Amino acid sequence: MKAPSNPWAGRFREGMSDRLVRFNTSLPIETRLFEADVRASMAHVSMLSATGLLTAEEGAALERGLGAIREEWLAGRIELDPELEDIHMNLEMLLTQRLGEVGKKVHTARSRNDQQAAAQRIFFKESTLHLAERVKLLERTLLDHCKRHGHLVMPSYTHLQRAEFTSYAHWASTYVVMLDRDRTRLLDGVRRADECPLGGCASTGSSLGIDRWKTATQLGFRRPTMHSIDSVSDRDYLVEFTAHAALLMVHLSRFAEEIIIFTSQEFGFLRLADAYCTGSSIMPQKKNPDVLELVRGKAATAMGDAMSLLALVKNLTLGYNKDVQEDKTSWFSALDACVSSVDIMSDIVRTMEPVAHRMREATRSGHILATEYANYLVRRGLPFREAHHVVGELVRKAEDRGVDVSELELAELRAACPHFADDVRELTIEGVIRGKNSAGSCGSEAMARLYDELESLLDEPKENEQGTKT
Amino acid sequence: MKAPSNPWAGRFREGMSDRLVRFNTSLPIETRLFEADVRASMAHVSMLSATGLLTAEEGAALERGLGAIREEWLAGRIELDPELEDIHMNLEMLLTQRLGEVGKKVHTARSRNDQQAAAQRIFFKESTLHLAERVKLLERTLLDHCKRHGHLVMPSYTHLQRAEFTSYAHWASTYVVMLDRDRTRLLDGVRRADECPLGGCASTGSSLGIDRWKTATQLGFRRPTMHSIDSVSDRDYLVEFTAHAALLMVHLSRFAEEIIIFTSQEFGFLRLADAYCTGSSIMPQKKNPDVLELVRGKAATAMGDAMSLLALVKNLTLGYNKDVQEDKTSWFSALDACVSSVDIMSDIVRTMEPVAHRMREATRSGHILATEYANYLVRRGLPFREAHHVVGELVRKAEDRGVDVSELELAELRAACPHFADDVRELTIEGVIRGKNSAGSCGSEAMARLYDELESLLDEPKENEQGTKT
Amino acid sequence: MKAPSNPWAGRFREGMSDRLVRFNTSLPIETRLFEADVRASMAHVSMLSATGLLTAEEGAALERGLGAIREEWLAGRIELDPELEDIHMNLEMLLTQRLGEVGKKVHTARSRNDQQAAAQRIFFKESTLHLAERVKLLERTLLDHCKRHGHLVMPSYTHLQRAEFTSYAHWASTYVVMLDRDRTRLLDGVRRADECPLGGCASTGSSLGIDRWKTATQLGFRRPTMHSIDSVSDRDYLVEFTAHAALLMVHLSRFAEEIIIFTSQEFGFLRLADAYCTGSSIMPQKKNPDVLELVRGKAATAMGDAMSLLALVKNLTLGYNKDVQEDKTSWFSALDACVSSVDIMSDIVRTMEPVAHRMREATRSGHILATEYANYLVRRGLPFREAHHVVGELVRKAEDRGVDVSELELAELRAACPHFADDVRELTIEGVIRGKNSAGSCGSEAMARLYDELESLLDEPKENEQGTKT
Amino acid sequence: MKAPSNPWAGRFREGMSDRLVRFNTSLPIETRLFEADVRASMAHVSMLSATGLLTAEEGAALERGLGAIREEWLAGRIELDPELEDIHMNLEMLLTQRLGEVGKKVHTARSRNDQQAAAQRIFFKESTLHLAERVKLLERTLLDHCKRHGHLVMPSYTHLQRAEFTSYAHWASTYVVMLDRDRTRLLDGVRRADECPLGGCASTGSSLGIDRWKTATQLGFRRPTMHSIDSVSDRDYLVEFTAHAALLMVHLSRFAEEIIIFTSQEFGFLRLADAYCTGSSIMPQKKNPDVLELVRGKAATAMGDAMSLLALVKNLTLGYNKDVQEDKTSWFSALDACVSSVDIMSDIVRTMEPVAHRMREATRSGHILATEYANYLVRRGLPFREAHHVVGELVRKAEDRGVDVSELELAELRAACPHFADDVRELTIEGVIRGKNSAGSCGSEAMARLYDELESLLDEPKENEQGTKT
Repeated sequence: MKAPSNPWAGRFREGMSDRLVRFNTSLPIETRLFEADVRASMAHVSMLSATGLLTAEEGAALERGLGAIREEWLAGRIELDPELEDIHMNLEMLLTQRLGEVGKKVHTARSRNDQQAAAQRIFFKESTLHLAERVKLLERTLLDHCKRHGHLVMPSYTHLQRAEFTSYAHWASTYVVMLDRDRTRLLDGVRRADECPLGGCASTGSSLGIDRWKTATQLGFRRPTMHSIDSVSDRDYLVEFTAHAALLMVHLSRFAEEIIIFTSQEFGFLRLADAYCTGSSIMPQKKNPDVLELVRGKAATAMGDAMSLLALVKNLTLGYNKDVQEDKTSWFSALDACVSSVDIMSDIVRTMEPVAHRMREATRSGHILATEYANYLVRRGLPFREAHHVVGELVRKAEDRGVDVSELELAELRAACPHFADDVRELTIEGVIRGKNSAGSCGSEAMARLYDELESLLDEPKENEQGTKT
Repeated sequence: MKAPSNPWAGRFREGMSDRLVRFNTSLPIETRLFEADVRASMAHVSMLSATGLLTAEEGAALERGLGAIREEWLAGRIELDPELEDIHMNLEMLLTQRLGEVGKKVHTARSRNDQQAAAQRIFFKESTLHLAERVKLLERTLLDHCKRHGHLVMPSYTHLQRAEFTSYAHWASTYVVMLDRDRTRLLDGVRRADECPLGGCASTGSSLGIDRWKTATQLGFRRPTMHSIDSVSDRDYLVEFTAHAALLMVHLSRFAEEIIIFTSQEFGFLRLADAYCTGSSIMPQKKNPDVLELVRGKAATAMGDAMSLLALVKNLTLGYNKDVQEDKTSWFSALDACVSSVDIMSDIVRTMEPVAHRMREATRSGHILATEYANYLVRRGLPFREAHHVVGELVRKAEDRGVDVSELELAELRAACPHFADDVRELTIEGVIRGKNSAGSCGSEAMARLYDELESLLDEPKENEQGTKT
Repeated sequence: MKAPSNPWAGRFREGMSDRLVRFNTSLPIETRLFEADVRASMAHVSMLSATGLLTAEEGAALERGLGAIREEWLAGRIELDPELEDIHMNLEMLLTQRLGEVGKKVHTARSRNDQQAAAQRIFFKESTLHLAERVKLLERTLLDHCKRHGHLVMPSYTHLQRAEFTSYAHWASTYVVMLDRDRTRLLDGVRRADECPLGGCASTGSSLGIDRWKTATQLGFRRPTMHSIDSVSDRDYLVEFTAHAALLMVHLSRFAEEIIIFTSQEFGFLRLADAYCTGSSIMPQKKNPDVLELVRGKAATAMGDAMSLLALVKNLTLGYNKDVQEDKTSWFSALDACVSSVDIMSDIVRTMEPVAHRMREATRSGHILATEYANYLVRRGLPFREAHHVVGELVRKAEDRGVDVSELELAELRAACPHFADDVRELTIEGVIRGKNSAGSCGSEAMARLYDELESLLDEPKENEQGTKT
Repeated sequence: MKAPSNPWAGRFREGMSDRLVRFNTSLPIETRLFEADVRASMAHVSMLSATGLLTAEEGAALERGLGAIREEWLAGRIELDPELEDIHMNLEMLLTQRLGEVGKKVHTARSRNDQQAAAQRIFFKESTLHLAERVKLLERTLLDHCKRHGHLVMPSYTHLQRAEFTSYAHWASTYVVMLDRDRTRLLDGVRRADECPLGGCASTGSSLGIDRWKTATQLGFRRPTMHSIDSVSDRDYLVEFTAHAALLMVHLSRFAEEIIIFTSQEFGFLRLADAYCTGSSIMPQKKNPDVLELVRGKAATAMGDAMSLLALVKNLTLGYNKDVQEDKTSWFSALDACVSSVDIMSDIVRTMEPVAHRMREATRSGHILATEYANYLVRRGLPFREAHHVVGELVRKAEDRGVDVSELELAELRAACPHFADDVRELTIEGVIRGKNSAGSCGSEAMARLYDELESLLDEPKENEQGTKT
């Protein structure tokens, strides 16, 4: 039964136990790598012909066979055999069934160790670049949202206490900046992993005179991996990816957290579209931001995935160890969390609406002009530390009276510090915001510059994207 | 389409977006809770009749309907509808399709929040007790293995350097002790979580006059949960479970690591059965301990699962938040890793063979009698620190000559310290082992006592098992 | 210099390199274990005399010497020598300096492996029981706080959206329940680890005829550890402790998160005392809940500590490996985070004040009586699912008009469903709360029962505390 | 007492409680940032003069004052006051004590939020570049070690089973490749974080007309941060750093693990210098690789640090939250683990010695020429899969006879497959290694190319290093 499927049947006296077969199989988790495995095999075969390890006829037959398998697979006409341990055994079996003897030559000068590594790298590059594109789309969506609602005023918060004030666009654009960092991290990782492991074989390369640069180039890699042992043992790119994926998810989680708080009845700064909320099976009035909570939840999952991968490789000796078969569990979990969450956040952003009057109203208390009052005194020569103290006492006085510091009489201000004059009344939120134009601040000029910078980040093709696409 | 499936369709103006439906669904991951959900619903309905919230006829109809659904489900004749968000909506729909109007009464005095919590607790108790049984079986298998191979001598190691010597059974039985701790941790967790959350409703309980003790008792729980808000927000038992599952897996990983090292050609202490090894696609001679490496790999996954669950609940406000829908991803991942790994380790232990002569041979060098030489001097009155120093110098002398310290001439020993006498030659490994009978040591009496203790741990029904089975 | 301090100087040709000495030292981190090490040594010496391995005089001298060292240490009159690798070498040196030759006998039948394990267990038991007491104090403080402010009404939340309503005491008491679970976890861990590792020696016990039960009993342990190898390699109790500590911290983090949200100007449900807030260096008006944010931050640290310890032991072979020297870094970090955070939370709870009118006001919108309207219809015979739908449509109508569902006219209610009658006006928040008396709910009777249960948890001495104190 | 030290004393009615003061202080952990804080303040003050916010005299006085403080600090003549909450309050106090009134002006247009962020970035850049240099030194040391011992032959391993054979230098050089990836990750992180947060102020920038590019340039940053809110809330660079630090430590842990296994008596491939080993307090003969175990242990700590930082920022709302004060705990822990471990590994590598005869001996069994036998048949036209099967059966036959496959008679080989001929005897390990010259393999030409590539990585100044040093 299973015997012939084991390539090592010659050496063993006993077949694998059924429980081992079940425990050992990597097929369900790695099926999505199959197409990449076929492509890698095509490049391998092409190199084998070019270097004379296959005759031209053999090479052509294998390439045709692989091409046919790829097309049938993409058309959904192939089912993998769960009795065979992995996609590689399946591929060789499919090939041999179709081509006969020559199929048994495909595994010349390769091991499943480098074959698996190659399929993973191909899929890694493509899926990570795809994710980076989705992140860019979220950035674009959010940037457009900022521009559309740029004029609204809201409190800024530190410690979730009202601090100063800013514009809605200034608040929301923070996440574009954060997400763009995530994107560069993903691209850095792709660049670093852009090396082809094929030809590493079991771990020390091959004595058959293969040409690794040829295979690497044909598959669109920058170069072959530098070291054959590293080729088959390296899972760094997945450790790095999941770490960066976890941070990307943490950013989405922070964004989700803020939107959840801002859509609470108490804040009321944002309104989500019905189409992106759910209700309750018991409470008829509920409209819940489930999506955002799931994003937070998936961030937690991705964090665990990052930890799993570090733990996975922590004490591995060199060469290949089967531990790393578990790499896909964490990798795909993190990848899927990212893609689905990034896309749903794009939808959320596209359909959410800021509630101008609630935000404006929230700026009327909390003494959020206090820092500007202190700055006012600084402009009139008071050392900042003293100005801070003066305004602090005014705030306490206002608190005692249950009013905002901006509602105190000029006489009271002057009693605290004679530097206050009539023009202190010109300090209005809208006025101050307009003038806050230090780099990265919320003033209109500063925001215009920020938009320009963000646009240019989103427009220009990253050198890395170039590099990896060639 | 989907509209009627949403129980909250009355309040919303717009259906859920398709992407939200896909993002939001918990069906694939929670399907294995369906049967527990049906059972919980049966107890709930029974309580509703008993307290007059349903008429006797209504109650009977619902119980019959639920019973039929359960049977069909177990027979594999029901498929859940992926258009419906979760198992609860599926259950209510199945019930209403079969029973008409009365089906709409099943959700009286409950919310999906406590309904989900109840299904999870039921499944948690049963699956954790099942895992504890599997662990016990592994302990039993390992204990039998120890008894079978008890007489073999091997080096003991610290820092992976030969330290002293011990018996193979003494080494292997360490893992029984470790695994038994794991088992008590699992059982402690079951005991702590043995409370029924049904009746917590959305989070503040119900005003309809329900009887939570009745439902709890019928479902075999020790009591209802103490607090309604906690009922729906608590995922502590899963955080605790995955932490303990991760530690159990870490123990298996340590065991796997040692077996891998011991089956290397260099150690050669153990031989695995062909049926539990795999070969190589390229190297014809390989026989690899893949299973054990996968166990190490799955331990890494379980560690990440534990971390995910802590991160999941870290900043949740009270009441229910959808983040926790992700709890099952990590929980089931850790649970499945444990069950499959524990079982495969039982197979490994049952079929592996110690290689007596390689272990015995390894005791002949490494100066592993050195500590006994020092103890010999202590018995003759030398302070231990001095005895240690004397023997240390003898070891250096032996090293220089390329022999083991036990091969030095008596004259040389006496030159270093006159307390050495003829009887030092009676210090043989087998002799010393026999006499090492301090509690927990490797002497024959000590081992007999250890076996008795371990047997009684495995025999006696834990009070917890009792408690939770009633 | 350092040479004499190495007990193994006899065997080595070369002293430790300076960098190794610095890298290797465990002294700074383990100093707080010194007193426990002295006590363990006293019990060890006493056992050595009793079994004849020391003469009565030697034993008495060593016990006196150790007693004197302990007193001087507690009085702060001893400084450990950083040139000596660890506390154990320091202790032996101190003893030998004072007692001469007999000091060199203290290390008879022990290794630093079991000596370290013993000091750690002693400190573990005591520090964990101390932490459990501090948790109990926080529970007590919070329970008193609940009783003091029991009558206040507030919304309950799910998904941070107003859901139903409850009492302030009901909300706050949730944390007592959660914390009490934490306490039982800590105590379970102490019970499991209540075994004395002394006598495990290097890892295979001693051939010198020691009595491990005697030492264990004298030190207040339930028994000696079951297995000598396990004695020196086991760090399970620390893995378990940090996992439970992380969950305790996560609970405090959740509590902190809610208080932070509740003290925002937008919620305004709680007011913190000035003495537990901080201000801003730039914004004169700020009053920030820094403490609570630090608690959240320390929860993150503790989560990492739990992960570190799992990773630390993941692949360790048996016997002692120096990796575990790092156990104290994570253990003490988690322990200190817990003790300081639990205590500061007690202060926070003792000094915070609920703001009754803000909470009451918040219940007036958000349609939080909607579920009770549905229950009203259920009592009048409508299937719950239909009642839910009817009220859902009423909510939508109310939303459109910008009013709360409870403000709709009776005529409007009756138009939606004729089951509505005059008595629907009797549904008031205060009225409903009083009657919500299912177990664990917010009704006055239910709360009285909850208080009784919590009091009895806090009053009765846990069997475990008993067990470990004897 | 403490009152005057709080800059917000004006607004508060009550001083901080003592417990809060202790809980809240960040002084002990952040002291090592003080010097960077002074430098940042100097740049800030210089910008304030240039933009007219300070007079030339005020600016000069403050710069002189700060310069003096910096010098005294570096000379160890300043002690920070633990009563003051942090380094920033200390700095302002020191300045005011020395300069009087003008000292109170230093905090113009800044908050501790951006001040802390700036000190951290400065220290981050410098400490990370320093670490990258230490990694480079380890790479260099290891590369030299490879070149010195390049000719030795050893088995290669997969699954810790002998697989093929390779050279010692080929094995060891794998770690150079891995470490060089680590180095590029660190440098990528520095490049990404090379932006100055000063001027972000509390979080929305300043209205006082500051020039952030000026400050940034003076401090050697590439530019100011793009967004003021991000300036004070961003800790991404630390999350990224600890993730990369954990992976670096994991690489050292893998290296340590292999060396530990290779120095076991059973392998005996490597010998460590006495100066980098320790002995045992009980076993006189022990020589333990403690250092390497500690490196593994510190890798576990660093993994937890990475997890802590992700958890720390997971749900933070924008603006500054005090949670992030805990960032330094994890960051410095990971940083210190890296620097000390990288350096000690350099020492280990410099002083360890391969044991040629043990490695050569290990290649004589394990059938490690089997793959070459299969390749031999492939060269003679057999499909690889068949060649693999033929040799597999030969291995089984050899196993049965207790010999290595290379010891079978030619007749036996030919009986299995007639393609075998006399020249199969020319397949020797040394011969095959020489010819294994596919890229990254162990042949002499391949190794020469690898050395060239590694040398050029180590020689050329990275663009990043350039960038950040200017």
